[in-house]
Amino acid sequence: MNKQSDTLTKGQQLIPNGMLDDNAPRNMWWCAAHVDEITEEPLARWLLEKPVVLYRLSDGTPVALDDRCPHRWAPLSEGEVKNDQIVCPYHGMEFGADGMCSKVPTQKSIPKSAKVQSYPLRTSGAFVWIWMGDPEAIDHEPVEMGFTTDPGWSVITGYMEVAANWVLIRENVLDLTHIAFLHSNTFQQDDWENPPEVSMQGDTIVYEQDFPPSPLSPLFCAAFGFEDKKIVKREQRGWMPSLAVSFSDWNIHDLDAGPDKRRDFIGRGAHIVTPGERGKTHYFFVASFDSPNAPVEILEKTKAGVISAFNEDKDLLQKIQARIMKDPRGLDFPEINLGADGAGVAVRRVLKRKLDAERGN
Amino acid sequence: MNKQSDTLTKGQQLIPNGMLDDNAPRNMWWCAAHVDEITEEPLARWLLEKPVVLYRLSDGTPVALDDRCPHRWAPLSEGEVKNDQIVCPYHGMEFGADGMCSKVPTQKSIPKSAKVQSYPLRTSGAFVWIWMGDPEAIDHEPVEMGFTTDPGWSVITGYMEVAANWVLIRENVLDLTHIAFLHSNTFQQDDWENPPEVSMQGDTIVYEQDFPPSPLSPLFCAAFGFEDKKIVKREQRGWMPSLAVSFSDWNIHDLDAGPDKRRDFIGRGAHIVTPGERGKTHYFFVASFDSPNAPVEILEKTKAGVISAFNEDKDLLQKIQARIMKDPRGLDFPEINLGADGAGVAVRRVLKRKLDAERGN
Amino acid sequence: MNKQSDTLTKGQQLIPNGMLDDNAPRNMWWCAAHVDEITEEPLARWLLEKPVVLYRLSDGTPVALDDRCPHRWAPLSEGEVKNDQIVCPYHGMEFGADGMCSKVPTQKSIPKSAKVQSYPLRTSGAFVWIWMGDPEAIDHEPVEMGFTTDPGWSVITGYMEVAANWVLIRENVLDLTHIAFLHSNTFQQDDWENPPEVSMQGDTIVYEQDFPPSPLSPLFCAAFGFEDKKIVKREQRGWMPSLAVSFSDWNIHDLDAGPDKRRDFIGRGAHIVTPGERGKTHYFFVASFDSPNAPVEILEKTKAGVISAFNEDKDLLQKIQARIMKDPRGLDFPEINLGADGAGVAVRRVLKRKLDAERGN
Repeated sequence: MNKQSDTLTKGQQLIPNGMLDDNAPRNMWWCAAHVDEITEEPLARWLLEKPVVLYRLSDGTPVALDDRCPHRWAPLSEGEVKNDQIVCPYHGMEFGADGMCSKVPTQKSIPKSAKVQSYPLRTSGAFVWIWMGDPEAIDHEPVEMGFTTDPGWSVITGYMEVAANWVLIRENVLDLTHIAFLHSNTFQQDDWENPPEVSMQGDTIVYEQDFPPSPLSPLFCAAFGFEDKKIVKREQRGWMPSLAVSFSDWNIHDLDAGPDKRRDFIGRGAHIVTPGERGKTHYFFVASFDSPNAPVEILEKTKAGVISAFNEDKDLLQKIQARIMKDPRGLDFPEINLGADGAGVAVRRVLKRKLDAERGN
Repeated sequence: MNKQSDTLTKGQQLIPNGMLDDNAPRNMWWCAAHVDEITEEPLARWLLEKPVVLYRLSDGTPVALDDRCPHRWAPLSEGEVKNDQIVCPYHGMEFGADGMCSKVPTQKSIPKSAKVQSYPLRTSGAFVWIWMGDPEAIDHEPVEMGFTTDPGWSVITGYMEVAANWVLIRENVLDLTHIAFLHSNTFQQDDWENPPEVSMQGDTIVYEQDFPPSPLSPLFCAAFGFEDKKIVKREQRGWMPSLAVSFSDWNIHDLDAGPDKRRDFIGRGAHIVTPGERGKTHYFFVASFDSPNAPVEILEKTKAGVISAFNEDKDLLQKIQARIMKDPRGLDFPEINLGADGAGVAVRRVLKRKLDAERGN
Repeated sequence: MNKQSDTLTKGQQLIPNGMLDDNAPRNMWWCAAHVDEITEEPLARWLLEKPVVLYRLSDGTPVALDDRCPHRWAPLSEGEVKNDQIVCPYHGMEFGADGMCSKVPTQKSIPKSAKVQSYPLRTSGAFVWIWMGDPEAIDHEPVEMGFTTDPGWSVITGYMEVAANWVLIRENVLDLTHIAFLHSNTFQQDDWENPPEVSMQGDTIVYEQDFPPSPLSPLFCAAFGFEDKKIVKREQRGWMPSLAVSFSDWNIHDLDAGPDKRRDFIGRGAHIVTPGERGKTHYFFVASFDSPNAPVEILEKTKAGVISAFNEDKDLLQKIQARIMKDPRGLDFPEINLGADGAGVAVRRVLKRKLDAERGN
């Protein structure tokens, strides 16, 4: 057993989550950035523990390169993009989108080995996705995210850097029973008294849970066009098609809708996580509603509410991560699973299977 | 020889003090907190390199638990105490004073293994003491500290976090010859020209030293009811009954007391240290005087003076610790002992004996 | 092969530079301080990963001692110098310039082993140099720096702490082709289109490069007494007589000088680096001009310009160092050499030879 494969087998976790180590599979699409973040100004970002520079060519094509010049390792992101070449800030070497050096200012010949790694990118919805594993192993496209740019939807997106391993966020968003406690002042959705049904649909983890009529979280009433504390029937349905993305649908049924009025609404969250530096995660989130043209002020207020709730998660997860890192017992500590952990435990199984496959276990 | 026992045998210290490692015996009482710090609001504190949560039941009983929920390791100290149960902030699991889970909000059955470690606590004087070793090994009570709550005494207590190993504070307070140098501007007690007599009384280290008439430290004159620079005879007597606590008595004789006046006074210091995170120490101190009802303003001024002196120690010990941690030579550096190190060296012997016993050397 | 010698052989650098490790030879003179920094007030400074205290005796002799008292390891630099003895701030032990203890306040006998390491110092020009290796191995004097105190020169000196290994600064200052890119807004000297000639003169690395008439960097015009953007012929000549010091001469020829006017000018830079703590460097720099008595306000403005340019180097080198330290690939990353790297690569060869000799490879 090699050193890396120890990642998920040490400690007293029944199914380890590798939260103190590099536990990110490489042969999959992770989110590199929101589409608007990538421009002709280079963007420096740590992705899967590597420094990466992201920028756009003049035709709009996004590019991702290792952010270390192969000459003296200066960060290319400190340079500028000129004629679709990124120029190293130190000695002015230039590189194309394929990572090949195209110019050395002080000499005519260009060493063949003067190149940096270029990473495949794809755009899906409002996000740009990166493949940092073996490019030969690309066997699927990024998760379909069309609703995030669909004019039929009203869409909020946001970003947080979280100083915790990405899998802690995964486990968090796939067990919503924490909403009744951690978010009792924000979501105020306190009816999570039973665990959801969890199933696998192929490789996709799915959970489903129906709620009897009860007041809808004040975070979302305005965006749905309801008055505050509106009583609705609610079906929660979540699915995780990739370790990088999970969705959380709030299917709302208006019990008082007039005869010609709309009765059924969807509020769709997406939780997108990308490992950054060791122990840090880029967390992109989406909150969206299947009606067009929600007023900007309502979306802004909704976004502020969502952020205040997600900050509660961020704060707690960071405390967990920091504590485990500092505690000499680390992962060697009791851990029990509850009925509500079905989806979270499934995440660990999917993760272990994927890492084992990549690492040849 | 196991890894842990190496702690006290490496380096060039003749009797090593383990200052860069975990050098805290477990089977003894350490101070967890001042009694007033523990309330129904949970208090998070690192004790002997473990995160611990401290709180009080409605009947006043103090409780100490591992501050990691056994479900997903959230800090219980971020939750609240309700009906004598501490409620995890993440998914609402509840735990009793014995650490057993008493409620899981989303299910009826409670897993047997759903428990956290509960640590025995005792109250002695103004402090609460914790036993973090084998509870079966409890064979004594915490050090008697009754004077700290005795109405016949005027008592000052204080707390500092010091970024240095606890043994550096122990060695500091058991060799008072440093007062003439490090505290020449605060204590102004410059007559420490000889080492004290040091002896062992059972397991207790004792030092004693008589001083001819000389001006008393201005830090203490007011608290004793003397004018500034009062000439007194002075007997210094210290004893360390536990690695966690040492006392320092200033026995003062008033040479000019009138016939019906009091001649003999005691000023008693106590130095209480508890290892926290690696390389950090909780330092609780007491300065007390054997007369009741000293005016509050005099005690406040005395406390400010004591703190300014102890900050000189803190500052120097932190610099020593940081320097040794950063210097690649670490403990592998010459160290000599002087005559005045009798009590300090005895501390190291007591420590080594205790660690060897616990670690089965 | 011992652990230390691995320093320069791991990673994918063709000729490794050891930038993540202790890569400083010991048997040579490094700069301890500018002469004005050493006074009768002790100065604490990390040199070659050791804490050192620097001070001056009453006759002006500079002294360097290990900054750890051999008793309880307190920093001597926190004490004071009294009668040419440095007094430990903790228990008042005193030490002479040879590091021998001369007084223990609480006892008459002085333990023979009560001593700290004393390091040989030499003054050359405006700098004081330290030998931290085997004193028996001293076989040469520090680099001649007389021009820095020569009244025939106008001299600027400065200091920066740089959070990067010293060899990154060495490689930086020995490949000036970066000036056209990194310093395009400060030096504005954009005519470095070819690599210089590099040669070895004994152990000294030398580079030389002639430039056709072009505008002189605005950083230096005023100090030479020229109007801005003065067109001059320029010969750049640099040499590194020691890993600790390199020089950079700007030999300027005024093409329009009248018949009785001076035609030839020298601007001489010196780049002096000393390893401090791991990954940090003391960088002393000199910018000087071979004319006496340049007006103070011109020197101050020149110094400000030089600092703003050197801050560009500092900022970039710190980013490189931090990135390589954080990147799990570390030195295991492609690195190519260009024609302009002749002098920089020679630095690595000199370094490797010196370390191999010291470490017995």
